[in-house]
Amino acid sequence: MNDITTLRRAKCKSTLIAIRDTMDILSGKWKINIVGTLMVNGKMRFMDLLREVDGIAAKMLSKELQELETNKLITRTVQNTKPITVEYELTQHGKTLNPIIDAIADWGTEHRNELFGK
Amino acid sequence: MNDITTLRRAKCKSTLIAIRDTMDILSGKWKINIVGTLMVNGKMRFMDLLREVDGIAAKMLSKELQELETNKLITRTVQNTKPITVEYELTQHGKTLNPIIDAIADWGTEHRNELFGK
Repeated sequence: MNDITTLRRAKCKSTLIAIRDTMDILSGKWKINIVGTLMVNGKMRFMDLLREVDGIAAKMLSKELQELETNKLITRTVQNTKPITVEYELTQHGKTLNPIIDAIADWGTEHRNELFGK
Repeated sequence: MNDITTLRRAKCKSTLIAIRDTMDILSGKWKINIVGTLMVNGKMRFMDLLREVDGIAAKMLSKELQELETNKLITRTVQNTKPITVEYELTQHGKTLNPIIDAIADWGTEHRNELFGK
């Protein structure tokens, strides 16, 4: 194995790890959907998210939001109103997902054309 | 609801469907990994893929390759050698995943820095 191959393999390895990191965070049916919805709408309450994210159950939404918060992609703010309201918002870091989401959306549209004809 | 909101919602809806299409194809632990490996190495035999894609079982690899072929992202070519060899390669359409994979890899690296400090 020559040096260039070794280098390419090492780069490939760290790239694949980075890919796996991202996919661990975004995979599944809901996360990208939730992030996309927050990106379009800005700050949202739990019940608004439940309505906007088509077909998600309250328990699942709660779990997904918690995971997104752990990964510092969203913030959860409790407002001292009566009754108490809880708001979710993308962090600056969460907003950096925008180019990925755009690329994924563009590709999805292209793929549908490719598979079913233009 | 005014016209701009309606328009934004309709656009958002089709965007979210496109996102779901892509994620259905690429989600899970292996697909992006397999596509990335084929992108780096070009044409590969089954056994080479099994070795390069870290930790995948033969049965899973076989299933994932079949799904990628169904989605026209890779081709499967049987070579009339003794013993018969089967080769896998990205299609032109499969290669269009490159920008997504790059974006996902870049973000994964950034995210690791964000989470664990630079």
